[in-house]
Amino acid sequence: MTDVKELALALSREKGGKLEVVPKVPIDSMEDLAIAYTPGVGAVCMEIAEDKEKAYEYTTKRNMVAVITDGSAVLGLGNIGPEAAIPVMEGKAALFKRFADVDAIPLSLDTQDTEEIISHIAALAPSFGGINLEDISAPRCFEIERRLKEMLDIPVFHDDQHGTAIIVLSGLLNSLRLTGKKLDEIQVVVNGGGAAGLSITRLFLAAGVKNIKVVDRAGIISSTDNTLEPHHKEIAKVTNLACQTGMLEDAVKGADVFVGVSGPGALKAEWVETMNDKSTIFAMANPVPEIFPDEAKAAGAYIVGTGRSDFPNQINNVLAFPGIFRGALDARASDITVEMQIAAAYGIAEMVSDDELAPDYIMPEAFKPGVAETVANSVRKAVK
Amino acid sequence: MTDVKELALALSREKGGKLEVVPKVPIDSMEDLAIAYTPGVGAVCMEIAEDKEKAYEYTTKRNMVAVITDGSAVLGLGNIGPEAAIPVMEGKAALFKRFADVDAIPLSLDTQDTEEIISHIAALAPSFGGINLEDISAPRCFEIERRLKEMLDIPVFHDDQHGTAIIVLSGLLNSLRLTGKKLDEIQVVVNGGGAAGLSITRLFLAAGVKNIKVVDRAGIISSTDNTLEPHHKEIAKVTNLACQTGMLEDAVKGADVFVGVSGPGALKAEWVETMNDKSTIFAMANPVPEIFPDEAKAAGAYIVGTGRSDFPNQINNVLAFPGIFRGALDARASDITVEMQIAAAYGIAEMVSDDELAPDYIMPEAFKPGVAETVANSVRKAVK
Repeated sequence: MTDVKELALALSREKGGKLEVVPKVPIDSMEDLAIAYTPGVGAVCMEIAEDKEKAYEYTTKRNMVAVITDGSAVLGLGNIGPEAAIPVMEGKAALFKRFADVDAIPLSLDTQDTEEIISHIAALAPSFGGINLEDISAPRCFEIERRLKEMLDIPVFHDDQHGTAIIVLSGLLNSLRLTGKKLDEIQVVVNGGGAAGLSITRLFLAAGVKNIKVVDRAGIISSTDNTLEPHHKEIAKVTNLACQTGMLEDAVKGADVFVGVSGPGALKAEWVETMNDKSTIFAMANPVPEIFPDEAKAAGAYIVGTGRSDFPNQINNVLAFPGIFRGALDARASDITVEMQIAAAYGIAEMVSDDELAPDYIMPEAFKPGVAETVANSVRKAVK
Repeated sequence: MTDVKELALALSREKGGKLEVVPKVPIDSMEDLAIAYTPGVGAVCMEIAEDKEKAYEYTTKRNMVAVITDGSAVLGLGNIGPEAAIPVMEGKAALFKRFADVDAIPLSLDTQDTEEIISHIAALAPSFGGINLEDISAPRCFEIERRLKEMLDIPVFHDDQHGTAIIVLSGLLNSLRLTGKKLDEIQVVVNGGGAAGLSITRLFLAAGVKNIKVVDRAGIISSTDNTLEPHHKEIAKVTNLACQTGMLEDAVKGADVFVGVSGPGALKAEWVETMNDKSTIFAMANPVPEIFPDEAKAAGAYIVGTGRSDFPNQINNVLAFPGIFRGALDARASDITVEMQIAAAYGIAEMVSDDELAPDYIMPEAFKPGVAETVANSVRKAVK
């Protein structure tokens, strides 16, 4: 790990960041200049002035995504500010290009005020075909995304919420292929009531899961609790319909699936023993998961996924966001709907063939050829 | 010209705009991914979190310029809106990369409110090493630039004003090399009291010109006129100190230099006949200049420059902005000062050698090797 950090520092210093912006038209003669710039460019401007939709036809808007943060919740590092968030945004933009030929621009905003962020991002919309919100802290991220989705006619997607949810759903779908259990019958526990946990819960519900309990620091979230914050009150309306109370230990008894977006070591082995047969565990705290795969398996878990690349079944959001935006841009979608997100999850899941599928192989590798294309196709078909 | 327009349309449609954003680090293996993205990127973030100046060392901020417009004054096309302005911003960004290896991103803002524009651009500053304002109408452009220069610690440069001024000054410097006249003795007439005309006037004054008259639609701008708008009132304090009144015809009598940033045919041949010996004319209305070179020469002009590439002495701002930002970024300058602008003009002028210098060759060609490097060097030396 130290090596990787040293290499990352050295590479960033040597290269001065990870991106460059290059012309895709020749500029080698006065004629080239007249075509790429004045006076030729005037004709292109006038076409768009008559019909601004033609920006999709004649400009980079067609393929350009803004990767925008306020630096308030960067990776596991917290509120480190807009400048310190740039390396993550650059990395994300690099992955967009590498995996799905999406041109993406990193933008770090110098404010953490919700209204200001909404105003700034809305003003940037003309240049972009989509907005990828990144590393914005909860609960501000909910309001920012919701409002921008209403205001703008281009897709707005908070990857920390929905990207993660899509990957976990694809893992869930493949675990069901192995266990033969049914979406609408399984008992699911989501540990962590933050942006990722709530988003996973909502996507699972939309995909057909009926029984989910969300557990936060204070225990199982239940509508009987009058002290809930607004976003927990909302989720309590659609989860834990039996209004069970208690802590994580109580929630996981008899559960089929555990999803951890919480902290290191949050799930004890003896609790895993109380889960249903052929249980599935997604322990995504990073770098130290809620439970290590060996320990979980020893306690009876059938399938274990983590966020780490050095264990089987890595839950890696690079499987989702490039193909999702590729599909949305190609379809000129005005939104990335829940249907498109579920379609993306099925697309990722089907990248593991029946022959390949095994408890230690439910997720395709990041570099498996065809992932982004398959996801993009699934997403495109789900538009409208 | 029709050909160029057809070619520009066809190329933009085929390519989907003129830019792409590409990784400059390898992303071909899980190890690459760990270095370019998580977990390696965390180390880079933490370095910057401790000292945000390190964004210059580790990120694209070092070399990244935002080319920002509100679409209110695009080329000669007027207020065509943010979407229709994108092709110009893309073209500009492509030239930045081609001529000076500056990475530039086109951003079209969906507002024409001065305060909102200032707020949006200020919020974007963390990601960028510089801001190139483009095609924003006067007088809003003055306020926007002035306020942003005060607020931000990165260079803010309105190219329509200062880029043009720098190129014209370089032309003036080379005309003086030929005529032997002196900066502080020449009589200059600037026709056009818009953003470009006022900026040219201010830069000429800063470079040592003593006698300038600015002429607008209502005639010679004079401090005796009580009906002047604020920005004209300001310029009247430092020009036309003899408080001459009259129209362009009166202003050019005995002038050594005419600078036109006005409209087609604004300068009549018989007026050129009344100018001083060895007069210089920069007729930059585009595509139809204030006077055509043949006509001006027949009327006695010694040197004629225009904005067009099909006549000698093209006043082309691509000679200036790439090298200016290259120099400012390399020096990590917090501003592009008047001194840096004058240095850039001298840099461009010196790209025409004594051997080459002639009435029909006072400007280097856009593709002359070394222009951007020479300008960048001059600018860098003028920092602080």
